[in-house]
Amino acid sequence: MQRISFIGLLIAALLQTAQAQQHPSILLTRQNIESVRNGVTKFPLLQQSWKDVKKDADKALKGTIDVPIPHDAGGGVTHEQHKKNYQNVLACGIAWQITKDEKYARFVKDILFQYAAVYNTWPRHPKGKGDPGGKMFWQNLNDCVWQVYVIQGYDCIYDYLKPEERKKIEDNLFEPIVKEFAEINGEIFNKIHNHGTWSVAAVGMTGYVCGRKDWVDIALHGSKKDDKTGFLAQLNELFSPDGYYTEGPYYQRYAILPFILFAKTIQQYQPELKIYDYRNGLLKKSVNTALQCTYTNKAFFPVNDAMKDKTYETEELVYAVDIAYSDMQSGDDLLDVAQQQQKVVISDAGLKVAKAVAEGKTKPFAYQPMWISDGADGKGGGLGILRSGSNDDQACVLMKAASQGMGHGHFDRLNILYYDNNTEVFSDYGAVRFLNIETKNGGNYTKENSTWGKQTVAHNTITVDKQSQYQANEKKGEKTSPQLLFFNATPQYQVVSAKEDHAFDGVQLIRTAILFKPEDAPMPLLIDVFKANSEAPHQYDLPFWYQGHLTDSNFPVNAKKDQLLPAGDNYGYQHMWVNSDAKVNAANGVITVINNKRFYTTTFLADTGTSVCFVTCGANDPEFNLRNEKGFIISEKGTAKHTFINITEPHGKTNPIAEYTTGFKPLVKDIHLISEGNDNTMFEFTYNKKTYHITLTYTNKQSFITIK
Amino acid sequence: MQRISFIGLLIAALLQTAQAQQHPSILLTRQNIESVRNGVTKFPLLQQSWKDVKKDADKALKGTIDVPIPHDAGGGVTHEQHKKNYQNVLACGIAWQITKDEKYARFVKDILFQYAAVYNTWPRHPKGKGDPGGKMFWQNLNDCVWQVYVIQGYDCIYDYLKPEERKKIEDNLFEPIVKEFAEINGEIFNKIHNHGTWSVAAVGMTGYVCGRKDWVDIALHGSKKDDKTGFLAQLNELFSPDGYYTEGPYYQRYAILPFILFAKTIQQYQPELKIYDYRNGLLKKSVNTALQCTYTNKAFFPVNDAMKDKTYETEELVYAVDIAYSDMQSGDDLLDVAQQQQKVVISDAGLKVAKAVAEGKTKPFAYQPMWISDGADGKGGGLGILRSGSNDDQACVLMKAASQGMGHGHFDRLNILYYDNNTEVFSDYGAVRFLNIETKNGGNYTKENSTWGKQTVAHNTITVDKQSQYQANEKKGEKTSPQLLFFNATPQYQVVSAKEDHAFDGVQLIRTAILFKPEDAPMPLLIDVFKANSEAPHQYDLPFWYQGHLTDSNFPVNAKKDQLLPAGDNYGYQHMWVNSDAKVNAANGVITVINNKRFYTTTFLADTGTSVCFVTCGANDPEFNLRNEKGFIISEKGTAKHTFINITEPHGKTNPIAEYTTGFKPLVKDIHLISEGNDNTMFEFTYNKKTYHITLTYTNKQSFITIK
Repeated sequence: MQRISFIGLLIAALLQTAQAQQHPSILLTRQNIESVRNGVTKFPLLQQSWKDVKKDADKALKGTIDVPIPHDAGGGVTHEQHKKNYQNVLACGIAWQITKDEKYARFVKDILFQYAAVYNTWPRHPKGKGDPGGKMFWQNLNDCVWQVYVIQGYDCIYDYLKPEERKKIEDNLFEPIVKEFAEINGEIFNKIHNHGTWSVAAVGMTGYVCGRKDWVDIALHGSKKDDKTGFLAQLNELFSPDGYYTEGPYYQRYAILPFILFAKTIQQYQPELKIYDYRNGLLKKSVNTALQCTYTNKAFFPVNDAMKDKTYETEELVYAVDIAYSDMQSGDDLLDVAQQQQKVVISDAGLKVAKAVAEGKTKPFAYQPMWISDGADGKGGGLGILRSGSNDDQACVLMKAASQGMGHGHFDRLNILYYDNNTEVFSDYGAVRFLNIETKNGGNYTKENSTWGKQTVAHNTITVDKQSQYQANEKKGEKTSPQLLFFNATPQYQVVSAKEDHAFDGVQLIRTAILFKPEDAPMPLLIDVFKANSEAPHQYDLPFWYQGHLTDSNFPVNAKKDQLLPAGDNYGYQHMWVNSDAKVNAANGVITVINNKRFYTTTFLADTGTSVCFVTCGANDPEFNLRNEKGFIISEKGTAKHTFINITEPHGKTNPIAEYTTGFKPLVKDIHLISEGNDNTMFEFTYNKKTYHITLTYTNKQSFITIK
Repeated sequence: MQRISFIGLLIAALLQTAQAQQHPSILLTRQNIESVRNGVTKFPLLQQSWKDVKKDADKALKGTIDVPIPHDAGGGVTHEQHKKNYQNVLACGIAWQITKDEKYARFVKDILFQYAAVYNTWPRHPKGKGDPGGKMFWQNLNDCVWQVYVIQGYDCIYDYLKPEERKKIEDNLFEPIVKEFAEINGEIFNKIHNHGTWSVAAVGMTGYVCGRKDWVDIALHGSKKDDKTGFLAQLNELFSPDGYYTEGPYYQRYAILPFILFAKTIQQYQPELKIYDYRNGLLKKSVNTALQCTYTNKAFFPVNDAMKDKTYETEELVYAVDIAYSDMQSGDDLLDVAQQQQKVVISDAGLKVAKAVAEGKTKPFAYQPMWISDGADGKGGGLGILRSGSNDDQACVLMKAASQGMGHGHFDRLNILYYDNNTEVFSDYGAVRFLNIETKNGGNYTKENSTWGKQTVAHNTITVDKQSQYQANEKKGEKTSPQLLFFNATPQYQVVSAKEDHAFDGVQLIRTAILFKPEDAPMPLLIDVFKANSEAPHQYDLPFWYQGHLTDSNFPVNAKKDQLLPAGDNYGYQHMWVNSDAKVNAANGVITVINNKRFYTTTFLADTGTSVCFVTCGANDPEFNLRNEKGFIISEKGTAKHTFINITEPHGKTNPIAEYTTGFKPLVKDIHLISEGNDNTMFEFTYNKKTYHITLTYTNKQSFITIK
């Protein structure tokens, strides 16, 4: 009886191994390969994507294999060659599976043989970055990325290889590579950081494909197999319960790929681990969160160090969207994103997506107002997103009340970004970097990223006494987070409110952003109530970095005609030219800007102490590293407590083709502060002659806001 | 016998009148109305356009008719109402013809009755502009436009009206309107100017529709019927033999509508006049010339006073394209433009276009390199256009060597505009104007249009001693024109060369622009040879106003860090902030800019006297009327003769989505001036290590240029 049971288990184990050892078995699988082959002739999205891959594969075959001794830093010749090689391995691996034309498989075999012949003869990379650094590339990170792609290509030609050929590659290339990652660069392997994720993904995926349980184990559970490091620990600690990655959307986009790829591999080989269900379906949430962190122009919210032109068309999100749709029961609105991406991965997942698109299942991507928590425990503040309108013309407000976000974080708590009509209205500078442009500081962040990009005044949030939050000290910033006070999205209004107690000594900041559409308004207003509480007098500067061109103001601007000077000496002020500095001298200030053929008027509470400074970014920039963005700064000097109330109203339009303009006058008028306490603000304003009365009670979650 | 012949003539005349008196008979015709009715259900472009017109007509019917006493200036309430009324008359007239639903015809009748009841009670317009000014609107021009539209609507409902109803409208409205135009504002009527064209078109079209030969005669031949004024005189004098309108493409677009509409009417009623053949098919040429004066981004070349966002999607060009295609045997490539316009006129012409598009006849619009002469005799200089590549990625160079262009002309002779990759590379500021934005100087040109927009330094051409051409004196500028030296477009290269002898006393300017693609180059180079000849020493400043962001230079830029000052006191120099001023200190200067993901490097001849100034537009601009465009100015001080040689090379690309950059280094090197005389320039340069030797012989048309 016992024996039978043992034999039974043995057979079960053997069967499982047999199934697991089927190749390919990651994105392309032996079970579905016939369907994919069929699909590439049938479904336009898959067809086009396959055409692109085949083109790359054919191009690879035309050249001669080049495996150079590593020499150059990022962007250099050997760097680019090794990068090209991994892309070719994957493209030819896929091409072999789809066409069964042996020339593709032979290419992969030949190039892997060449790597296997020389890898162990290479020293550390001469331009090594970090300790001990990479081997094929200057950074270990790039080596890991190389292996993540190569192992997929190897999986594709696994069955084409003879056992002794596999042995040659695994013994002479993959085994030393795993050692390089998990031991020599073990510190990275065991880091709770996206570089660590690339490393464990490389080792773990290699382990599954080569049938090496030992490699899989350390990848999942860390070198010590104690789950203090490794993939599961990373999943626990790098994401909030809402699937937000603390460095911000730009880095979330980058980090997501190894998570998704490794998870997919785990799912294929060990479905019993239910990795997709881990932390209440964290990975699915993470994909959705990444997409919710974009605007309808496809670009990610550029908070923290971010390249502003990065969109969800990026390859990482193609993988993420395909796998989320096919494996994680994400909705048909994801197909909208896939269509915009104009690309799927040549895989079982890509087939499902392309087929569903071809069947007309696509729904518009479901952007939603939401609060996205930050911090592994969800208590590190977060992002508040308000949205109104269709994807064709959507008002969107982002309030950044997230934690510091590590080294790429900006000192911009309670920053607001405002989008409308498919464009930025109040914008974030993003990172000061010319990515991959070698003549601009080697393509790395320029020094103005620290002196400008990260500083508070470069953002649409209060600067106190011309300093940055936490005096721009990252370590101080990491100790605490802003806190959510209230979030709600009703048909009448959407609101997010958050506070920050520590960014400036002795000053409490509470900001509340409201999207509210008066009955007869064509578009919602952005109502912004920003409260600074202190016992001592301060200078409060609140910038709005706007896109577009100033067309009107209710006070004389009088821009400086014959000399421009910087606004200050540090904390970013040294990078702003002061174009004008004017007193408002009225109960409300009014500033109108035209942007993408629509007017935006900001009407704001003013008093005798209120002045407005128009500024242009670009002072102290000897190498022209900065874009000359424009802002207006509402300033209050020498007050201890102050409440900024700013209502921004989109209105009218210009049509330069048909040459007409309508609605160039705003309808918001007479903002009037009725009362304010530490715990509440009451004010009113009129829209089209009707008065609206708003009460905010910061301590009352049941009745936080009333609008009458 | 004589009697029979007389009767025969009478019958023929009656028949002709009968046919002429058929209604409608301009854009919609009784003969074809059934086909158009059928077409609006069948051909998508016509269908969509009809949907738009019907929507407007239905909206008109929903409101109450409002014919206010004229009171307001442009943009004001009564101005906009009368404008709306003529649009409604036409929309409802068309809707009546298409649907035969009486409600539309009744609307047109009712509103015309209302106008007829009050028109003669109105005084001169109280905000009258000019002498005597308009009646319904502040300017006579707007009154004329009103009538051009209304008469078409009237033509549509002509048969619906009873004879006594027609009499009421013609006697009380059209007759006094014609008197208003042809007599009271007879000066405009007899002007050789586009305002005159609107006036004669209004009177002539009204004459044809109402069967008033007297009105037609003066419209065609002028008040004195001596052909010194009137439509034919305007056709003779306002266009060059190539169909170029001297004010420039932006105004050509505006002027073309009354020409085309009136010509179409003439063709309908008096085909024997062969108006389309007039001056060798001038009108057809004029439509083609207008389109050739656009870039692949659809926008007109913004030389002279021009709004830069004006494209061929504008209504004037919709009429022009439809009529040119249907009536003037223009090619199927015009269908490409019609498709981009996404609109046709609901008319016989629009039907033909929409049908041809639906039948798949569309060919890409045939942009061509060409010389377009200016001046009624073709001897007033002109525009040289070089083009290379498909409409998806086209290099285009415009050399402006046209005459002054009247009051809207800029002092920018030998200016060069350079486009590539669907975007501007070296650009023209255009007009300083916020069209229809009342808060910006009432939507009119701002004062900076004169102090900046028109000045030489705002353009990519030489400024001598920091002054403008003709010291910015329009009258002086109108006396002479630049002269074409050479134009040729071969498969190897395209070249345009022109000279200007009078813009600066004692200085001769000769500029030669060449598009040349070295054998192994992916894209053509722009080779620019600009020669200044004088006996006395001068300062020669050659600006390049570039789009994009500086990424590299072979000399230290050292932008000013803590203070910006204007570049001078007048001629536009007062509007430029000097960001940096550096010696090149090398035989060649090199400046690289990234623009729309492609690099552009300008390599230019330099010597010890060469300096480069980086500037930003925006000084002395107290109301923020200027855009902060950027330029670099190559300066030579204290030389009498100088030859600027600048080669601009498009190269490489960045892909911010996939995050890679290729080809960021230019391949043009070592520009070397071999010899120069008054009549020739010899120089060489290398591209990708191969040397090219170029000789220009300015006096030799047979062998003007050799490239070896």
